[in-house]
Amino acid sequence: MHPPDLNTIRAAAQRIAPFAHRTPVLTSRYFNDRTGADIFFKCENFQRVGAFKFRGATNAVQALSEQEANRGVVTHSSGNHAQALAAAARERGISATIVMPRGAPAVKRNAVAGYGAEIVECEPTQAAREAAADEIVARAGANFIHPYEDPRVVAGAATASLELVEEVPDLAIVVTPVGGGGLASGTCLTVSALLPQAKIIGTEPTLADDARRSLAAGQIQTDGIGPTIADGLRTSLGPLTFSILSRHLTEILAVDESEIVQAMKLVWERMKIVIEPSSAVPVAVLLKYPDRFQGHRVGLILSGGNVDLDALPWLSR
Amino acid sequence: MHPPDLNTIRAAAQRIAPFAHRTPVLTSRYFNDRTGADIFFKCENFQRVGAFKFRGATNAVQALSEQEANRGVVTHSSGNHAQALAAAARERGISATIVMPRGAPAVKRNAVAGYGAEIVECEPTQAAREAAADEIVARAGANFIHPYEDPRVVAGAATASLELVEEVPDLAIVVTPVGGGGLASGTCLTVSALLPQAKIIGTEPTLADDARRSLAAGQIQTDGIGPTIADGLRTSLGPLTFSILSRHLTEILAVDESEIVQAMKLVWERMKIVIEPSSAVPVAVLLKYPDRFQGHRVGLILSGGNVDLDALPWLSR
Repeated sequence: MHPPDLNTIRAAAQRIAPFAHRTPVLTSRYFNDRTGADIFFKCENFQRVGAFKFRGATNAVQALSEQEANRGVVTHSSGNHAQALAAAARERGISATIVMPRGAPAVKRNAVAGYGAEIVECEPTQAAREAAADEIVARAGANFIHPYEDPRVVAGAATASLELVEEVPDLAIVVTPVGGGGLASGTCLTVSALLPQAKIIGTEPTLADDARRSLAAGQIQTDGIGPTIADGLRTSLGPLTFSILSRHLTEILAVDESEIVQAMKLVWERMKIVIEPSSAVPVAVLLKYPDRFQGHRVGLILSGGNVDLDALPWLSR
Repeated sequence: MHPPDLNTIRAAAQRIAPFAHRTPVLTSRYFNDRTGADIFFKCENFQRVGAFKFRGATNAVQALSEQEANRGVVTHSSGNHAQALAAAARERGISATIVMPRGAPAVKRNAVAGYGAEIVECEPTQAAREAAADEIVARAGANFIHPYEDPRVVAGAATASLELVEEVPDLAIVVTPVGGGGLASGTCLTVSALLPQAKIIGTEPTLADDARRSLAAGQIQTDGIGPTIADGLRTSLGPLTFSILSRHLTEILAVDESEIVQAMKLVWERMKIVIEPSSAVPVAVLLKYPDRFQGHRVGLILSGGNVDLDALPWLSR
């Protein structure tokens, strides 16, 4: 698989424009004062289905030929990609099948079902997920849309940072969370092409700092991914995202669980927006390492806002 | 006291422009689908100090002559107006004294103190508040800035709806919460001047529907204001706001406590923004009476977003 180039990313932006929101860029006097930086928050929590994932899923679905599209799409995910693919498929009027582990939260199942997708249950292991998805591909000829190991998905994710850079063209640093690496890869590709002088900093929970260790070791590490509250970041890199991040990321910084929860609550209190724990990870990094950012214009991608309001982390801990 | 006219409101908009945010107008596919209306949410929860109150306080403080300003400002409030006046005074570099009832929540005292205002405690009665404020006016010559019975404050509040109407010029209905009536009065003055065909609908908690009863009775009712969760709306009208609302409001609709809490949670979940219970009141009205709004372009003012994240109403009930 080859990483998408800037033309491909621009084509993705055009392809998804009728469906995805152009999300706002917010600023915060409070966070600027705390860090000494000028921070520009790209609010993908306001994206459709509440996360940047809608961009990649929509780009992949809309890029299918008529013939391909008629066979439907399939993926395995219990997170935002599942909802995003279900919504993107409904937008095109094609069928979507989502493989979810048995025991996935009812709120997530309901959200996917609410978009009209079919849910197939499997055992909660990576092998069982992949086998179930493979079977659907073999049986129905459905198009498998991986959450991040897919250039169409990466190109779609890259449109978030493309919009950010178009709106704030003089960023010195761009900060992004790293899970499977789709958003981070997309950010790398746009920022390195349009702002070659800018630093690109990845952020992870210490409990799941597999990408940091992967870059240090020079090969993908899949072990040592703990139950971080930033559940969107519990995924390991794939060959495509690993190669992009290896080439372009300046560094990866990690933060502890309590720092993530505090940053999340501060964003809710001070910016009056709802973000999910994964989005709080880069914010926590800015608060923990202000020296890295002081005096600079910093772009930060808030990846999503899907939270169970009945189980807020600062209340349940 | 005379209500401010449109020129006065436009002058207020210019006066506060260097200090206040021009807040965004958001839309929501979900709430449009639920109501059959096209709703435009004016997000004063993103205003400085987290509420529209900063507009009126800033207009009043900036309108003072140099000589007046040097004697400082004073008000009695334990709510958003207290923080707003403290912040507005600091912005001008003058002193502010806030009379607060003994036993006011520490979080509110700290917020006011954080803006550098002096806090004077009093017994928690309306008479004690007024006496304490009067004494400070008499002693220091300070300028009393009432939370709503002040044409400068009403003109400042009116700039929120002015921005909304400038951005969405073809609204058929504008919906606003009614507490002391400052925001509602400002909305009445702008909308009646710029969109004379539009309906203006006030909204209240059933537990504190004193404005509805006041308009029905033809005189201000101060009784029957219960401990609604929409604590910003526990205030009765004054002569100025009563006269404006009597002339311009189409009607006032009320909602129950559980409807307010549900609407608040839905806005957080679906729009990913933090609003306070008072802001959820007009949203709850749209959900309760969709027939009134179906097929229309509706402006709705979300008045603020100051919430204790450790005591969310859907968790504590």
